[in-house]
Amino acid sequence: MAHPAPSARAQVRRAPNRADYSPATLHAILDEGIVAHVGFTADGFPAVVPTGYARDGEHLLLHGSTASRLMRVAATQPVCVTVTLLDGLVLARSAFNHSMNYRSAVVYGQGRVLEGDEKRAAMRTFMEKLLPGRWDAARPPDAKEMLGTMVVALPLSEASCKVRAGPPLDEERDMEFACWAGVVPLRTVPDPPVQDPKQAPMPVPAEVASWRPGRRQGHIPSVG
Amino acid sequence: MAHPAPSARAQVRRAPNRADYSPATLHAILDEGIVAHVGFTADGFPAVVPTGYARDGEHLLLHGSTASRLMRVAATQPVCVTVTLLDGLVLARSAFNHSMNYRSAVVYGQGRVLEGDEKRAAMRTFMEKLLPGRWDAARPPDAKEMLGTMVVALPLSEASCKVRAGPPLDEERDMEFACWAGVVPLRTVPDPPVQDPKQAPMPVPAEVASWRPGRRQGHIPSVG
Repeated sequence: MAHPAPSARAQVRRAPNRADYSPATLHAILDEGIVAHVGFTADGFPAVVPTGYARDGEHLLLHGSTASRLMRVAATQPVCVTVTLLDGLVLARSAFNHSMNYRSAVVYGQGRVLEGDEKRAAMRTFMEKLLPGRWDAARPPDAKEMLGTMVVALPLSEASCKVRAGPPLDEERDMEFACWAGVVPLRTVPDPPVQDPKQAPMPVPAEVASWRPGRRQGHIPSVG
Repeated sequence: MAHPAPSARAQVRRAPNRADYSPATLHAILDEGIVAHVGFTADGFPAVVPTGYARDGEHLLLHGSTASRLMRVAATQPVCVTVTLLDGLVLARSAFNHSMNYRSAVVYGQGRVLEGDEKRAAMRTFMEKLLPGRWDAARPPDAKEMLGTMVVALPLSEASCKVRAGPPLDEERDMEFACWAGVVPLRTVPDPPVQDPKQAPMPVPAEVASWRPGRRQGHIPSVG
């Protein structure tokens, strides 16, 4: 493996043959995903909360209300942020060898609150990574909305990925078992955009009409 | 709200207007999802691991190798299991009011290892919930495979859901802002099944060809 695990806790334990510690894989998974699951400890118990996110260079950006427990936690405690892309059901000849094709990224760390220009740039990045062109189209945040939003940057320095792809792996003894084997590929697709009924009809903007998950390349300044 | 929160930790804090504690909502979300994110504490730090799961009545079933840390943890420690269905991007006139449509379920608890007949029934349930008809088609687990697999049942007694649906909610002052507003619906779809190249071509079985996420109703005995 060209890239070693960055730390003990970021080392993949189960099925280490599926581990991938390369930045290219990490970036690709994070850039295709939309929702992350953030794990933290609350009152002594584990908690997992889904949230939107964006990758900005070597950081993962989270944002939310300043009143949100998740944001306070992400800025002050160790968290684990996991993004999973489900690529298919793997149907083997044997029940035992059924599996799923997936790409997952796990990031361990503690966030840092962004303020001032850095915060505003990150909020733009957040939106542009999800839907390029949207930041300039929408009404920008005013001072009160900026104050009500917290943005946290989490370094990607302690991360690992796991990837399973390809057909089922049955044992030699099962190869002649008369059961169809293969993969049902899965993907996330958009349906045609639905305009807000409270708005007079207008054409769907090109960046909205053509939006697809995983095609989200912008030219966006990085958080330092 | 007809159904109150079952416990303090299962009470939704942020955006409580989106909270839903009804069993019907919980069951519907768990039955449509395929991958759960399991949160636990490992060496003092939070960890979040994706895994397949199935709902069986008032339990959530997890399974995996007896060598898996996740399975050992799920059987001996408190965990938090979160399932999130992303239903759409919510594009508001204001940057601030952008959101996502989603349905999420969060289950807190500690699992119980299933053994013997109960374990075997649960393994069948696990597969049949994902793809009805598959258990009888595939080569059943032998004694060694049964020994190598751990099945854990987590009660659904401490759970909560959050649901956001519908158009963006812009403020009155933004209603005339000239920016297209609405929703880009998202869904997970299967592509045509791809047979294992190591198998002589055979027709795709009906239950595989017609499989869709969320259409997984089986007639399956429940774990007690």
